[in-house]
Amino acid sequence: MKLKELGEFGLIERFTPKFKSLIGPAQIGIGDDCAVIPANGEEDWLVTTDLLTEGVHFLRNAITPWQLGYKSLAVSLSDIAAMGGIPTGSFLSIAIPQDISVEYMDYFMDGYRELSKKYRVPLLGGDTTKSEKHLTINVCVHGKCAKGKARMRGMAQLGDLICVTGSLGDSAAGLKLLLEKKGGGASESAFLLRKHHQPEPRLAEGQFLSECSHVHAMIDLSDGIASDLIHVLKASGRQAIVETDRLPLSRELSVVATEYQWDTTSLAVAGGEDYELLFTVSADEFASLNEAFSERFGRPIHYIGCICKGAARIQWLKTGVVYPFAKKGFNHFA
Amino acid sequence: MKLKELGEFGLIERFTPKFKSLIGPAQIGIGDDCAVIPANGEEDWLVTTDLLTEGVHFLRNAITPWQLGYKSLAVSLSDIAAMGGIPTGSFLSIAIPQDISVEYMDYFMDGYRELSKKYRVPLLGGDTTKSEKHLTINVCVHGKCAKGKARMRGMAQLGDLICVTGSLGDSAAGLKLLLEKKGGGASESAFLLRKHHQPEPRLAEGQFLSECSHVHAMIDLSDGIASDLIHVLKASGRQAIVETDRLPLSRELSVVATEYQWDTTSLAVAGGEDYELLFTVSADEFASLNEAFSERFGRPIHYIGCICKGAARIQWLKTGVVYPFAKKGFNHFA
Repeated sequence: MKLKELGEFGLIERFTPKFKSLIGPAQIGIGDDCAVIPANGEEDWLVTTDLLTEGVHFLRNAITPWQLGYKSLAVSLSDIAAMGGIPTGSFLSIAIPQDISVEYMDYFMDGYRELSKKYRVPLLGGDTTKSEKHLTINVCVHGKCAKGKARMRGMAQLGDLICVTGSLGDSAAGLKLLLEKKGGGASESAFLLRKHHQPEPRLAEGQFLSECSHVHAMIDLSDGIASDLIHVLKASGRQAIVETDRLPLSRELSVVATEYQWDTTSLAVAGGEDYELLFTVSADEFASLNEAFSERFGRPIHYIGCICKGAARIQWLKTGVVYPFAKKGFNHFA
Repeated sequence: MKLKELGEFGLIERFTPKFKSLIGPAQIGIGDDCAVIPANGEEDWLVTTDLLTEGVHFLRNAITPWQLGYKSLAVSLSDIAAMGGIPTGSFLSIAIPQDISVEYMDYFMDGYRELSKKYRVPLLGGDTTKSEKHLTINVCVHGKCAKGKARMRGMAQLGDLICVTGSLGDSAAGLKLLLEKKGGGASESAFLLRKHHQPEPRLAEGQFLSECSHVHAMIDLSDGIASDLIHVLKASGRQAIVETDRLPLSRELSVVATEYQWDTTSLAVAGGEDYELLFTVSADEFASLNEAFSERFGRPIHYIGCICKGAARIQWLKTGVVYPFAKKGFNHFA
């Protein structure tokens, strides 16, 4: 059988049961943004790992080494954010082809250090080796959270509102500009490219949200809500209604999408790499949470739909009418 | 500048200082087999990560998927062994090219699980993705040890004997058989190939040795003693004398090396991938340690030299005479 047919999540589901019997009490393994491991009386430890490989996750001539170093760490920090955790250390493995210079690696490490410094995440170890052809990077990040307080994908409750912390589709539009060699020097294009190359992990937001007991499930948006929300629904045994008109779009995306006649809904739903947080919150607590969030961060949260009964799938509504939206999130083996 | 000129350890030394200021109290980061992180009142946590990439660390047509899965975990478990630790969990990232089938991945995961079960190490997370061309695997392993008891590279003391837990050069000879398409079906060749493809992490040995307070520095032999012992010497600020006649060689290596006129000393010193432990022990405790070790494991430890004063380098002796041995360990960027 080909992996393409099975898909990333099919492959994971195939081998996860074989390892179940080895997992210890109170440990949470495969199936969330991070593993959760009891550390001591007060804290749980969080661990996440992400692999980026040239030609699949990035094109070496389309991203600066500084940005690549920054982004390599950002995507793993985003998983810590999704649990409401605080990052405590990172481990960087890198396979480097012969045509990469020491100076390239200097810039790469400067970008990696920029984000390490910003969130005070020490680089504690790693592995460096030669690569036959492609640059490949694996980052493993550790974090911590108060015991039992990690926000999991399976915590969504009936009647919760589904919210996101920021605009969707910007990163996907940035990638589309790159691939279609569009955009020129317009400030809107520059904004979208920056969102693609330098995503901001929503660590402060995740910690803030996890302090609110009415915030239930949480996940970071790496593959697009069409894929990531499904993880929440499967883990929670629930269905979702998402109103496409409610998807928050940046002004910049609207401008660029109008110019090139792009479908913003597709970008926002299935584009991926936004690294905003998606979470669910009790409907009657939304207003006060939004007020507190806005006061703290200077921008609102956005509700895009709600959690309802039924099989784990998304019902899309467009101006209140059922919308037969067939877009799926990013398939890692397509 | 080219990375080849700088080398793996030159690159690591280049960027490590830039991250020093972020490392917390009692944390030990880059520079040993594992990072050491205080977890609670009784335990330290150990973390290690290793990246294997096709064409550099393995040839896909020369190793079975089962063996590759097994070896991917073994090399990281070996780092936990080198600290005297107990492994507690693993994280597997894998970038898979399109021409690899689901069945290949099944065998790979079976090999990975074999070793997971043997040492009761749960697979707690990971990342799977497509790869443009080469199969790349990153394994991050966690472990634990009694607080402050991890054995570091920098603990070698003046007058210590340098010892290893088993025969050297077998894996390198196995690789040489593969590369030179030699060996046929002889049992000696099969033994050497097996040592290359299925190294046994010396976990029980490492835990046993770390319980002896006279055992000081410890490291696992991944690149050959010509490279790995230098790490111990640099970290400890000491010099070493190594007697090449004392390097333990297996019967199988002697038979095969005689047949093909291979230099066993080169293989034992610079071949790498033995994954035996090298450690230093107070000279007056060697005999009793060897007796206890032999009783527990049914085979002896081997002393190969001693720690002396001076700059961090190895003085090689052959039949008691200084031997101008120029072999270096494996250069990861050559």
